[in-house]
Amino acid sequence: MVAGVIPQTPLLPVPGVLIGVGAAGIKHADRNDLTLFQLAAGTEVAAVFTRNAFCAAPVQLARKHLAAGPVGHLLVNSGNANAGTGPAGLEDAQATCAAVAALAGGEARAVLPFSTGVIGQRLPVDKIRRALPQAVASLSPAGWGDAARAIMTTATTPKATSRTCAIAGRTVTVTGIAKGAGMIRPDLATLLSFIATDAPVAREFLQTALERAMARSFNCITVDGDTSTNDACVLMATGRAGGASITAGSPEAAAFQDTLNAVCRFLAEAVVRDGEGATKFIRVLVEQGGSVDECRQVAYAVAESPLVKTACYASDANWGRILAAVGRAGVRDLSIDRVDISLNGVAIVTGGGVAPAYTETEGQQAMRATDLEIHITLGRGAARSEVMTCDLSLDYVRINAEYRT
Amino acid sequence: MVAGVIPQTPLLPVPGVLIGVGAAGIKHADRNDLTLFQLAAGTEVAAVFTRNAFCAAPVQLARKHLAAGPVGHLLVNSGNANAGTGPAGLEDAQATCAAVAALAGGEARAVLPFSTGVIGQRLPVDKIRRALPQAVASLSPAGWGDAARAIMTTATTPKATSRTCAIAGRTVTVTGIAKGAGMIRPDLATLLSFIATDAPVAREFLQTALERAMARSFNCITVDGDTSTNDACVLMATGRAGGASITAGSPEAAAFQDTLNAVCRFLAEAVVRDGEGATKFIRVLVEQGGSVDECRQVAYAVAESPLVKTACYASDANWGRILAAVGRAGVRDLSIDRVDISLNGVAIVTGGGVAPAYTETEGQQAMRATDLEIHITLGRGAARSEVMTCDLSLDYVRINAEYRT
Repeated sequence: MVAGVIPQTPLLPVPGVLIGVGAAGIKHADRNDLTLFQLAAGTEVAAVFTRNAFCAAPVQLARKHLAAGPVGHLLVNSGNANAGTGPAGLEDAQATCAAVAALAGGEARAVLPFSTGVIGQRLPVDKIRRALPQAVASLSPAGWGDAARAIMTTATTPKATSRTCAIAGRTVTVTGIAKGAGMIRPDLATLLSFIATDAPVAREFLQTALERAMARSFNCITVDGDTSTNDACVLMATGRAGGASITAGSPEAAAFQDTLNAVCRFLAEAVVRDGEGATKFIRVLVEQGGSVDECRQVAYAVAESPLVKTACYASDANWGRILAAVGRAGVRDLSIDRVDISLNGVAIVTGGGVAPAYTETEGQQAMRATDLEIHITLGRGAARSEVMTCDLSLDYVRINAEYRT
Repeated sequence: MVAGVIPQTPLLPVPGVLIGVGAAGIKHADRNDLTLFQLAAGTEVAAVFTRNAFCAAPVQLARKHLAAGPVGHLLVNSGNANAGTGPAGLEDAQATCAAVAALAGGEARAVLPFSTGVIGQRLPVDKIRRALPQAVASLSPAGWGDAARAIMTTATTPKATSRTCAIAGRTVTVTGIAKGAGMIRPDLATLLSFIATDAPVAREFLQTALERAMARSFNCITVDGDTSTNDACVLMATGRAGGASITAGSPEAAAFQDTLNAVCRFLAEAVVRDGEGATKFIRVLVEQGGSVDECRQVAYAVAESPLVKTACYASDANWGRILAAVGRAGVRDLSIDRVDISLNGVAIVTGGGVAPAYTETEGQQAMRATDLEIHITLGRGAARSEVMTCDLSLDYVRINAEYRT
């Protein structure tokens, strides 16, 4: 189920990036579950990985390979996360990198491995090895759509988008794909995103730009507060559009950042809309805070409150639950009597109590929308923060209680 | 539904405490929803209130009255929390205190008011006033059982227990009642507990003893991480057993503390077992931590993880979800390869990976129990912490999505 509509935009190839897919039969027969990215020489690569201390073998290896030097290939499999597999898991990840190098050229340490799927089972290296020739044979600039489907596990729709912008008189492209049903589901170890551009971007700024874009997209979403063992987001810049490298000080930096932000934001929102069991898309916007941190604290307390989420599922304008979540968020010296809350534009709380003009009918009408915006003002300052989430439905429990059985 | 059995122990009266109940018809007709405690002169009273910044009118008033001087009565209503009701709510709470004083004697400021129930609706003061004579007429030392039922909202069973111990050659009693389906459900503003003893206890130590007992009971439970606007726990010491007042330095302090701990622990566990939709009682025990704080952090991350809770509901020994929750708990420099996890005595994770001898069959058998103990060792030190919780079931979502509709 998807909450609302995930718009499909035309996917543009990124000069310098070839993508091939293959069917290794890791979890399901007859579907592509292997994706190979081949990058033109000179491509700069930036990445952000999970902060979970329990971090999967491919994440450890990808981090190491990325630090060691230029990247030639990315290999992604779905169906198995290769997490909780100990030293054997590292050897397995290593073996898949060697297989790519043997077949497609380059060195094993120029391959970044990514895995997503079930935790705690050995990676079927032989199956992957057997399917690799198919992936190599299908390498093409037009492979983005196939890749968006091949990296899926139990998500219901592929997530992919493209944007262009003008950089120094040239049109550059940013295309990205993502998979995941939230930050959720560590055993289906979750969020992967691969984004590429033909803009020429210096390595250091590429990393900065990715982290900035993440802060406003993948790092402000939550489905159930659980962070995966395999989360990774990779940004590749081939430079094929030509021109001077963009650095933090370049006049083109802002245009590139805006475009990248738009791609990340689109993908992050698509992931939330396809969150497990989601029937509503919820934006929690907190303003007038004393600091961004306290706004984030409040936004997350509301966005992760099971009581708020079940009320959204029920289309119940239960302002008491929202206000109580604000109250327990741990903001020091919060004056609840300065807090206002509106819901899709309907004022429900003013000055810490129910809004004088508010009626339950009006509240319930507002709550019936698929897209909900909970707007909270704290009356303490000028900072703001925003978190995107989805509701907590019966299907969420069904999916997570029945997944392995 | 109750996870496991809440044992019923005989309830012993506490000399110096009279309890009466009445039916005010606040939410339901034909059930007692009003409870009046009358305390003998000289009774010392300690209390702990919710830390939620959004704190209900009766909590504000009870705090103020307690600070002002001796307490003669406690008035408790269920069905309406008198929260989010602004200045009018304070006046309403004040009016009920005045009504008690007028009818039962004493001053309004010697009455502590408590309310639990729906948020955001005005307290029906007239209904309470009309039912008060019934509560006064039924004042009796044997009222504990009736009170345990009268303070309930949607919990399915009353929670009450008694313990005795010998203090300086005299037998003293500690009897307590509690209501709540967790720390959960701010709109049914939740946890109330009233405990009394005839032991003579100095005011300062009474407060210390209560806070210590809370730390090991009500403060280490969670159903869904939400803290209520009305939580309160009150400890009354009438001194009717005679003898010298117990202070922190008294030889009797330890015996009293142990007995109080046992009462609070019993009540807290009973609250979790009756958590909304609970089908399992889960004890998360974290040991070998570098500090108590980091153990608590890990215990709460596991106990509040929707993925761990749904796995428990499904009797799925999903160690990947537990390990991932440990990994994201935010413990600095955690070496996941030192983490061991067992489940009701079955080793499922050793050294951060699946235990060599572990089989799914064995894990699933262990998970079928109603009482689960998730035992986590961090291999970092000697600190420990424990959290009690319940599973996340379809009924939890049903109850919270359908409560107001």
